[in-house]
Amino acid sequence: MKSYWIWNCGDYEIFHTNRVNSRRQQYGMDYPAFWRFYDVDRNVIFLTKVQAPRDGQLILHLNGTGYLKVDGVMYGDEKQVPIRRGEHALEIHVVHLSGLPAAYIESDVAATDGTWYTRSATLEKIPVGWDEKYDKPTDDPETFPFSYETVVPVCTEHTDGGILYDFGKEIFGLLHINGVCAQERIHVSYGESRQEALDTAFAVVQEDVAGQSAYCLRPRAFRYIFLTGTASAQLHAQLEYVPLPNKGFFRCDREDVNQIWQMCAYTLQLNMREVLTEAVKRDRWLWGGDAYQAFKFVPYLCSDSGIVRRSLIGLRGKEPFCEHINTITDYSLLWVMGVLEYYENYGDADFVRFIYPRAVSLMAFCAGREDENGFIVKKHADWIFIDWADMDKTGAVCAEQMLYIAANRAMAKLAQVIGADGESFTQKAKSLTDKVNRFFWCAEKGAFIDSFTSGRKNVTRHANIFAVLYDIADEAQRESIVRNVLKNEDVDKITTPYFEGYELDAMGKLGDVDYIYHMLTTYWKGMLDLGATTVWEAYDPQQSGVEHYAMYGDRYQKSLCHAWGASPIYLLGRYFLGVAQTASGYETFEVRPQRGQFGFVDGAVPVKGGYVRVTLSQKELCVVSTVDGGTLVWQGARYPMEKDKEIRLTF
Amino acid sequence: MKSYWIWNCGDYEIFHTNRVNSRRQQYGMDYPAFWRFYDVDRNVIFLTKVQAPRDGQLILHLNGTGYLKVDGVMYGDEKQVPIRRGEHALEIHVVHLSGLPAAYIESDVAATDGTWYTRSATLEKIPVGWDEKYDKPTDDPETFPFSYETVVPVCTEHTDGGILYDFGKEIFGLLHINGVCAQERIHVSYGESRQEALDTAFAVVQEDVAGQSAYCLRPRAFRYIFLTGTASAQLHAQLEYVPLPNKGFFRCDREDVNQIWQMCAYTLQLNMREVLTEAVKRDRWLWGGDAYQAFKFVPYLCSDSGIVRRSLIGLRGKEPFCEHINTITDYSLLWVMGVLEYYENYGDADFVRFIYPRAVSLMAFCAGREDENGFIVKKHADWIFIDWADMDKTGAVCAEQMLYIAANRAMAKLAQVIGADGESFTQKAKSLTDKVNRFFWCAEKGAFIDSFTSGRKNVTRHANIFAVLYDIADEAQRESIVRNVLKNEDVDKITTPYFEGYELDAMGKLGDVDYIYHMLTTYWKGMLDLGATTVWEAYDPQQSGVEHYAMYGDRYQKSLCHAWGASPIYLLGRYFLGVAQTASGYETFEVRPQRGQFGFVDGAVPVKGGYVRVTLSQKELCVVSTVDGGTLVWQGARYPMEKDKEIRLTF
Repeated sequence: MKSYWIWNCGDYEIFHTNRVNSRRQQYGMDYPAFWRFYDVDRNVIFLTKVQAPRDGQLILHLNGTGYLKVDGVMYGDEKQVPIRRGEHALEIHVVHLSGLPAAYIESDVAATDGTWYTRSATLEKIPVGWDEKYDKPTDDPETFPFSYETVVPVCTEHTDGGILYDFGKEIFGLLHINGVCAQERIHVSYGESRQEALDTAFAVVQEDVAGQSAYCLRPRAFRYIFLTGTASAQLHAQLEYVPLPNKGFFRCDREDVNQIWQMCAYTLQLNMREVLTEAVKRDRWLWGGDAYQAFKFVPYLCSDSGIVRRSLIGLRGKEPFCEHINTITDYSLLWVMGVLEYYENYGDADFVRFIYPRAVSLMAFCAGREDENGFIVKKHADWIFIDWADMDKTGAVCAEQMLYIAANRAMAKLAQVIGADGESFTQKAKSLTDKVNRFFWCAEKGAFIDSFTSGRKNVTRHANIFAVLYDIADEAQRESIVRNVLKNEDVDKITTPYFEGYELDAMGKLGDVDYIYHMLTTYWKGMLDLGATTVWEAYDPQQSGVEHYAMYGDRYQKSLCHAWGASPIYLLGRYFLGVAQTASGYETFEVRPQRGQFGFVDGAVPVKGGYVRVTLSQKELCVVSTVDGGTLVWQGARYPMEKDKEIRLTF
Repeated sequence: MKSYWIWNCGDYEIFHTNRVNSRRQQYGMDYPAFWRFYDVDRNVIFLTKVQAPRDGQLILHLNGTGYLKVDGVMYGDEKQVPIRRGEHALEIHVVHLSGLPAAYIESDVAATDGTWYTRSATLEKIPVGWDEKYDKPTDDPETFPFSYETVVPVCTEHTDGGILYDFGKEIFGLLHINGVCAQERIHVSYGESRQEALDTAFAVVQEDVAGQSAYCLRPRAFRYIFLTGTASAQLHAQLEYVPLPNKGFFRCDREDVNQIWQMCAYTLQLNMREVLTEAVKRDRWLWGGDAYQAFKFVPYLCSDSGIVRRSLIGLRGKEPFCEHINTITDYSLLWVMGVLEYYENYGDADFVRFIYPRAVSLMAFCAGREDENGFIVKKHADWIFIDWADMDKTGAVCAEQMLYIAANRAMAKLAQVIGADGESFTQKAKSLTDKVNRFFWCAEKGAFIDSFTSGRKNVTRHANIFAVLYDIADEAQRESIVRNVLKNEDVDKITTPYFEGYELDAMGKLGDVDYIYHMLTTYWKGMLDLGATTVWEAYDPQQSGVEHYAMYGDRYQKSLCHAWGASPIYLLGRYFLGVAQTASGYETFEVRPQRGQFGFVDGAVPVKGGYVRVTLSQKELCVVSTVDGGTLVWQGARYPMEKDKEIRLTF
């Protein structure tokens, strides 16, 4: 019978997240993440009842050690166990002290699959975890099912006393060095940029090898490889990736924007691995804020729920929750919002049912961080991040409260999804909204201020962007924010692509697609013009040459393949193609196309297993969806969309 | 400088406990324990400040991957790091996803030792764990430092188509088979008894080997080995043990009792491993009730605090505490009492400081298991064990409340040790005592009844023994209990050595040493007469032959080397030699010798790093202690004891 490896629900994701977060290397050092790691349950009991259609037998395979009970009788693994026709209570016990406990039944009359369950401490049944990719007894759930593709250098150059290999674009993969002598002591210098690879004093990732005639080096990010110590090497790489075909696309009359979209898509693809890494060179970790941004991009590219779900589980970990996600207060709150984002995009209530208790304990932890006004504040080693910006973080920080409101509202909605009582979250969101307006709204500035504690009345974009994005500002406040903050040149500009994502989202929400168009055709185009094949972590048009690659005081610390820079995928799909869900899982959705300054836009956005195609030129609008549930909204009119029926409007 | 491997405090113990609890095998199956496993923290940060006496350097060794920070600057492991004279802030980051994260600094100017600390979620400093046995960079904290001793069979017998090897007494160790041919398919059958080894259909532990000319089989318990399939084998074993020299001893005029003491001591020695196993053949697990019994024996034998401390940490695990220890309600409560027992015996307030928060959360978990009267009851998968006995377990069970009172009292005392507020525990103990008397004391029976819910008024010894042992019964109740329960032949006898330990302790406390003498010279002597070399899990004098080895419906499931049978060590030291601490860590202690029916008793009990020697014959009492703090109490008079000054009384 068709069988799958099963494990304790969520532990597969935590197992692989731990690997992701402990793989970073730089300057010859291992550099694991600094936050708390959670782990798998070491001792797991899987239960089910099976109905054997006839007499038969089974063999239990384990990742770990343990046994099977059939109607209370114990059997070892890897042994033929007779099963008589009829109903049987099966129970698998498996312990794995250093890996992921998992089980697989090979049989003609029984199987391990999603009908199995574990029991919580209160004896509730919790469906096991499983994945269709692990369906053979020889499969190993500890090995993530990556795909590999051979890539060869597009050009080779003798320089600086060695050979520089250019793979043409950034890749993440295993480097194979063949055709060398065992006597040669070879130095391998990796570079996201040509300069980095050649700068063997400062390149972040380097390795010395010797003693073999061929090498396969561990998966790393690079475009350039600089070898010294050998002249005969033949290089190729195996690109390591998860095959997630793009279901969305975007093209327009501007070739640079088309290239930007491709660059963003490729950047996101490289980072959609076991979980969403924030970058492939540095840090290669699962960061909550970066992932939350990507959660918004993914539905407009491949709409893969798996990568989002795995990241959410990996970020949250397990109990006890005694440290903010990545130690950052905002990231805990964004995680809760991310769970709702996931539900709204994919409509997966089972996942909400599974994760909800962990969201509740996270919010209880946050509640333990409130000051006398009920505002969330820093305690102990908490990191109030929000953004790298000159923000007044004295006492309760306004932007943090905006997220706290949004997280409480998200909790109320999630509670509703699974029929839990979310009234306390609704009330908390209301009282917080009221207090935020009382304490942080500054009539004099016509904006929310960072801190009321310091008395400095400092205004930054951040809290005000959140106020717009999360509908905390009312109509009047919104107008005031646009005038006094967003369009006010005197207020410091956003300096990170991370927060630029929020700002552009707010601009889109406010209907200002020209602002987005402008940023695409200047800021993103700037990187493109500098030869970027993936989007950078940060980009300052004022800098030049090798300056672009520096960060944190180090010459090449900047990541040149950073997921958070991929927001154009979202912005173009959401605000130009204009597709957005209006009921969870795209059960219903609206299409509100806007051409802005483009001559035409043409693209597709994944919806509910299908896609919606939108083509808008100066003369014609054409919309068609492969699924039901859509409504085209065009110039005030609403056009219900039928599956596969094209709507064509000409002007 | 003298350096030690350091780890997250408590994780070494949890790491090794998990190994202990997952090593059991029977009938060719792996049989890990069925309860919740906790695990080490995967990501650990060690901190300290060092004062380098001069310029020097260090090398960091890690069990895991990570790095060192010296005054904020990162260095990799296994590299020479320069350290300038003066003060430095050191920080070690280490991740180990499959083992025990640990670190060791090799240096002439700095060291890893007990002055390092980790930080709790609330930034408290928690001293690291370390052990003097791991003081070299090549030491591996994942390898428990057992000692080994070669043991050879004392006799060999050709029988049943094979060869039976008798090692003379029960051992636990690795079996070496030498001098065989690779072609031979050898069957190895282990036996704690001769019959078990020969019964290849039913022996619990068996293994087939082939393909080599020599084998070393994993550590197991056995006295007999039966080999078939080879005639040329040379066997020897390596006894695996922790060298803990006996500091206590006992001898008297009855050679059988002397042998019983030796047998008990050896039984306990075999079970004092990484943690206290309850037995060496089956289950080889860390059981809370069994360990609690042994906690009382150890101070009268070797007085090793390490074995008790490791067991306490291993039993309790970490957070969240969401399942009773071994799933058994009583074992959770006994654990709390065990912590106090540990403190009273060894005076180690640092450990209490470390473990107290885990005791608090355990008690909070128990509080969540209370009924409307405040009695602790079964919830979900809880196991109300107390003993294998015909007990009325309807509703709240009396014996369980007795332990709940004792555990609350223990918490109050532990709170006092570390200056925490234990008032709630004091109050809870008081109100419980009051309610237990109101609900469970039956004037008609003159005893505590098992259950007031059922209306059956069933009386067993268990609750009444606890009432005496833990001073819950007042003087009048105590007399009534002795008359109506303990000395009442109509009340079912205790059937397990486990609970017999409590009963004899109560008898000793009541001054009835003749009862203990009687049990030693009949019950324990019965096993001795049947050839026991270690104490059995259970013994029924009515049985005969191979019947003795059966348990749980299986022919040889009974353990013939069971720690809980070693109570004579405690009983003889505590009630005949009469030594007992009166202030924690034997700061003060009393000696109240009783000869009972012995012609003479002579022995030593470890006290505070030294020992007290007691010799009592019909004509003379001689007491001497190698440490201060003792008081001899003899026939109503108190004699203060001076270090090394013998007190000799003749009559």
